[in-house]
Amino acid sequence: MRSSTGVKAATPVVVRKASELQSVVAAWRRTGLVVGLVPTMGALHAGHANLIRAAAAENDRTVVSIFVNPLQFGAGEDFDSYPRPLEADRQLAGVLGASAVYAPTPGEMYPAGAATRVRVSGLSDVLEGVHRPGHFEGVATVVAKLFNACRPDRAYFGQKDAQQAAVVRRLASDLDTGIEIRVCPIVRDADGLALSSRNAYLNTEERQAALSLSRALRSANTAFLAGERDHGELRRLLHDTLRQELFANVDYAELVDPNDFVGPGQLAVLAVRIGRTRLIDNHLLGEPFAAALSG
Amino acid sequence: MRSSTGVKAATPVVVRKASELQSVVAAWRRTGLVVGLVPTMGALHAGHANLIRAAAAENDRTVVSIFVNPLQFGAGEDFDSYPRPLEADRQLAGVLGASAVYAPTPGEMYPAGAATRVRVSGLSDVLEGVHRPGHFEGVATVVAKLFNACRPDRAYFGQKDAQQAAVVRRLASDLDTGIEIRVCPIVRDADGLALSSRNAYLNTEERQAALSLSRALRSANTAFLAGERDHGELRRLLHDTLRQELFANVDYAELVDPNDFVGPGQLAVLAVRIGRTRLIDNHLLGEPFAAALSG
Repeated sequence: MRSSTGVKAATPVVVRKASELQSVVAAWRRTGLVVGLVPTMGALHAGHANLIRAAAAENDRTVVSIFVNPLQFGAGEDFDSYPRPLEADRQLAGVLGASAVYAPTPGEMYPAGAATRVRVSGLSDVLEGVHRPGHFEGVATVVAKLFNACRPDRAYFGQKDAQQAAVVRRLASDLDTGIEIRVCPIVRDADGLALSSRNAYLNTEERQAALSLSRALRSANTAFLAGERDHGELRRLLHDTLRQELFANVDYAELVDPNDFVGPGQLAVLAVRIGRTRLIDNHLLGEPFAAALSG
Repeated sequence: MRSSTGVKAATPVVVRKASELQSVVAAWRRTGLVVGLVPTMGALHAGHANLIRAAAAENDRTVVSIFVNPLQFGAGEDFDSYPRPLEADRQLAGVLGASAVYAPTPGEMYPAGAATRVRVSGLSDVLEGVHRPGHFEGVATVVAKLFNACRPDRAYFGQKDAQQAAVVRRLASDLDTGIEIRVCPIVRDADGLALSSRNAYLNTEERQAALSLSRALRSANTAFLAGERDHGELRRLLHDTLRQELFANVDYAELVDPNDFVGPGQLAVLAVRIGRTRLIDNHLLGEPFAAALSG
């Protein structure tokens, strides 16, 4: 918690309804407290932990939302199998400094008759948007709801989902939320794999194959740092590295502008299927490739 | 203003930026004040006055927003000619009890690159939604922005725009805004014409022709009160009355469910073009037809 105004709550209260969260946050506000929100789908790992720690350091009170959002899963995706270890998540959130966990039910979030959707055009229509139709509309809709339910001063997202972070920044600005969007760096395991709740799906062989993503990013980054600026050549490095891994099926591997995700630029973005698990990763070329921050 | 906590501000402050309004409202909130919002497109008339008075009576502070929203006008509609008497509106809002007028510029509301839209499906796809494609997406988007910029406890809309009010109710609930939506009755001139900023477009002959709308609603209502329950017969009364007026071109005249605007029901809704002016009106059959509240 920030400064001396906060008292660390080891066991955060679990809130199930938006109206209840609004009451909790309004009471904080009346005493002048500043509020951070960390939206998650739970199954918290060290990447989430970084977000929660950052929020707890920069705000007086931190809310962690945990909601596996059906709207952002497509048909045939892993909505049903997505891990939901709520009690462990709650304890971890508390240890990291969260004051409240907002864990609404799907019925609370999308009651019968709900008909409102939020959409960010352009950014939602490329890369992830092409491979996961409707995904970013689901993200934008749930984020707009979470922002209204919590009304935080700041909200925290991970750079691992770079395109999602760009969609959220756009939404927060376009809809006049007044919320500052903070994007925290990717956290990688010692072997380079970007942390994701979906890594739990990987068996031993797939886990080895999954290292091809960070290997591809590192290879393009090494070339960039050595002076390579040819877009086609850098892109070829990504694809060549991924092609060497037999178990990797590439959805896309591109170099895009980090703001609009359309024009060519220095952000290398990958989506790769390893067996039945779809993984994404990215790196802004020229930045040092993160040493492992966990594991 | 409600109770003794408010001090009447005869000349409300004019706020041009969302961030500025958020600061103003946050300061009110810290002292425990309750806030009402009256979203308008300006050119305030006695219908708006009723909304502002209701807001001022039920809240400690009232914000009137004045913004002619380009997103909710279609090609060939009256965006350019829509009246914009800002200074007169500000003075009237102050007299009626408003503490602040939020009057952003189009460039402030929709800067280059803005890409986020809010959409309420179903309700937006019938009647007005058919005749004004994109209209309710424009309404929903601007209302979501105004709600975020002001974060009121209550927001006030007029029953004249019945379908809009239903869209806003749905949005406010679906997006967990926590805002109570209040819908105030239609205000009619002594001759029955529902007040609208667009009535200013009518010349003397058109003004006479425009009375056919309230005449049609009154005729269906009289039949309903006399026991008529046949949906086809009541609908025929609407159309027959309108057909007697040579200058009236009917976009629609229907009896719909007041919640979903789809199924048959007791809400009579009309959209009629008189010359180049498009007017709407409605009445819930069985309710007394309002005597003139103004004029």
